[in-house]
Amino acid sequence: MKPTVMRPPPGGGAFQEPRRPLLVKKFGGTSVASIERIRKVARLAVESQRAGNDVVVVVSAMAGETDRLLKLAHQVLPLPDSRELDVLASTGEQVSVALTALAIQAEGGQAFSLLGYQLPVVTDSAFTRARIQWVEKSPIRKALHRGQIAVVAGFQGVDPENNITTLGRGGSDTTAVAVAAALKADVCEIYTDVDGVYTADPRVCPSGRKLRAVPYEEMLELASLGAKVLQVRSVEIAMKYEVPIHVRSSFSEEEGTWILPRDQVLEARRLAGLACERGQARVELLGVECSPEQMTEVTDLLAEQNVSVDMLCHARCAPGSTRADIAFTLPEGDLLRTRQSLEQLSDRLGARELRVSNSLTKVSLVGIGLRSDPGIAARLCRNLSQQGIPVSGLVVNELRISCLLDAGLADRAVRILHDTFELAGEVPAEPLTSSAPA
Amino acid sequence: MKPTVMRPPPGGGAFQEPRRPLLVKKFGGTSVASIERIRKVARLAVESQRAGNDVVVVVSAMAGETDRLLKLAHQVLPLPDSRELDVLASTGEQVSVALTALAIQAEGGQAFSLLGYQLPVVTDSAFTRARIQWVEKSPIRKALHRGQIAVVAGFQGVDPENNITTLGRGGSDTTAVAVAAALKADVCEIYTDVDGVYTADPRVCPSGRKLRAVPYEEMLELASLGAKVLQVRSVEIAMKYEVPIHVRSSFSEEEGTWILPRDQVLEARRLAGLACERGQARVELLGVECSPEQMTEVTDLLAEQNVSVDMLCHARCAPGSTRADIAFTLPEGDLLRTRQSLEQLSDRLGARELRVSNSLTKVSLVGIGLRSDPGIAARLCRNLSQQGIPVSGLVVNELRISCLLDAGLADRAVRILHDTFELAGEVPAEPLTSSAPA
Repeated sequence: MKPTVMRPPPGGGAFQEPRRPLLVKKFGGTSVASIERIRKVARLAVESQRAGNDVVVVVSAMAGETDRLLKLAHQVLPLPDSRELDVLASTGEQVSVALTALAIQAEGGQAFSLLGYQLPVVTDSAFTRARIQWVEKSPIRKALHRGQIAVVAGFQGVDPENNITTLGRGGSDTTAVAVAAALKADVCEIYTDVDGVYTADPRVCPSGRKLRAVPYEEMLELASLGAKVLQVRSVEIAMKYEVPIHVRSSFSEEEGTWILPRDQVLEARRLAGLACERGQARVELLGVECSPEQMTEVTDLLAEQNVSVDMLCHARCAPGSTRADIAFTLPEGDLLRTRQSLEQLSDRLGARELRVSNSLTKVSLVGIGLRSDPGIAARLCRNLSQQGIPVSGLVVNELRISCLLDAGLADRAVRILHDTFELAGEVPAEPLTSSAPA
Repeated sequence: MKPTVMRPPPGGGAFQEPRRPLLVKKFGGTSVASIERIRKVARLAVESQRAGNDVVVVVSAMAGETDRLLKLAHQVLPLPDSRELDVLASTGEQVSVALTALAIQAEGGQAFSLLGYQLPVVTDSAFTRARIQWVEKSPIRKALHRGQIAVVAGFQGVDPENNITTLGRGGSDTTAVAVAAALKADVCEIYTDVDGVYTADPRVCPSGRKLRAVPYEEMLELASLGAKVLQVRSVEIAMKYEVPIHVRSSFSEEEGTWILPRDQVLEARRLAGLACERGQARVELLGVECSPEQMTEVTDLLAEQNVSVDMLCHARCAPGSTRADIAFTLPEGDLLRTRQSLEQLSDRLGARELRVSNSLTKVSLVGIGLRSDPGIAARLCRNLSQQGIPVSGLVVNELRISCLLDAGLADRAVRILHDTFELAGEVPAEPLTSSAPA
């Protein structure tokens, strides 16, 4: 971990930046699922403050609350208006901040709650999946200055027209990292129900090993490939502003996994781990008429429908040929709502066939320098096919190698690859540049 | 009801004021207690809009929700911080506006929800019992201009420092009337689980009769004396801005009770009805040393503790006497929290005795010109004492006569007085200046 930064006092007349270490602690829904657990969060925050830190707590809705609210909305209207959905869903975090602030007071601490619009956390207007544009830090600074623990509602923001927005599932991670970035916090601690990031999901692969540190880039790949520890966007912001993240269990004191700039991760390993993304579909547009705009049409459509595709392949129009194939992977849920548009697109592009395969799992090996060493992809394919697992798609880039497998074969594939690449092996000593703050 | 006002188009370049009748409809917790009831509210709003009105809906939290939230807070901390209580409690109405807006969309209408801070409804900073300072009308006007039904969260506001505030129990009534005043609405309809204002609570007094119209002044007295149909503050605002209120049942189409300026209530009766306020305590400071500041000390203390007292009596220091008595009535709940301060006050004033009586009910006769006709107070006392009910306190002013009774005798007293003053009698024809809007 990078050492606590002692900043010089500011030159201007503004109130002074706190010199104490500043910790942002984010607690997910499981950590605030009951009054008893909220009390535990409060104790942890108060203890940390008494140990000499400035503390900002970011909380999610109590576990199950967001689902309960969304279910109500769907009872009223099967396809609810997304602006009103956000008004509804954001109450979950509002309840959590109020109860957490009260629990901190019950522990003898002082607390001040802040909602998305009060900070404000300004976002764009993409309801239910808004992106943070900026975070105002002065209300938190003022609360810390008053000796209070700031309790910030995760997941919610406000757009420039003063509408409530939400950041999508896992959005509280992003709130926490954005707040940590705005405040130049010393660390953003993500408390969760797992105790860190693993080389592979231990429920699938018993030899999966907890990583002590992962560089942002690999974490970005792991998060977007189904390691559900962190929302992808939160890692993007952490990387951009170099916010050290510590993913740790809310049920133990144990060190978790640090997510840091690459130069601070001394762990020598080139391979970080394996990730599984289930529920994938493969779309193939076969025999599309060659034209300079065909790829633009595909990517425009997908952007318009807000589908994040992966493994996009485009067989280039060979000289003399007039037809080409385009293929990509997307979550099955997105397939349902984009199916009609895809069919229209297929017609417009003059495709001979639109082929869709369901129930696929994307298994990815994440590391660095994977493209520059073709031996890795070769070993991956060889070892899987030797065990009777056909690899139906392969994408290699610098940070990962992904393949598409039938859902039923994925778990076995993860175990095989974990062995193949010796991910369970011990790490060298001194994996981090420095130890965690007290 | 006053006729629909056709205003001239505004001279400036601002968007045009709607010419259609503008109705503000407020629905309490029972009316939005379930998805089914919310659908009913939505249908009512959409039908009213289709009939040619501009419609603003103000909703409370779903019945039981505010209690559930406050119970959570009290589980965390027995005396919760009032700022955080308001953050918590205001989520109740936030859920209601989102679901109501969605239900209106489900009925084929268009809706736009607005929270207290979005309007904004600006209040002072007295958390849990804030007073509205002003209401911005332009977001509602814009929504109506777009053809939407504006769905406004009742009960909540925002103070000048951007903190969430709430208006106290029944605060949604006040929101509705304040919004109606800001918009110069043609009527503010309060939908509730009773069908109007009665001469006496029909559960206590079977001959209680529904009033067709009540002037603001009498309604103010009735509301502050325990007729729980409307929050007192809402009537104050309605009176100040001459907002016609229509209190009616959300379960029937029937005409309810109109609350109007006196000159629009043609009902000839001088007596409006009887109200009961239960759970009262009487505080007597006996043998206080005479000084010019003694009353100021008492009223300052009560204001400081935010206790609204009633029936304040001060036996003047007679020439030659050096001692006097001071007595007042307050809700039992307020007595608990002010007891200690009252004892200190009693010592400071050199009172011989601080006497407190509990379990009293205040029974009030509300009407006009009550002080100028001493015969009414005399009949009240005579008829009660003849039936063996001792009257332990009496206050007479222009709009009401109140007496304090043992709780167990109050219901019988109400029935006796209802007969004594012939409140069940038929009203003359043409009780209102004009009929209700379609």
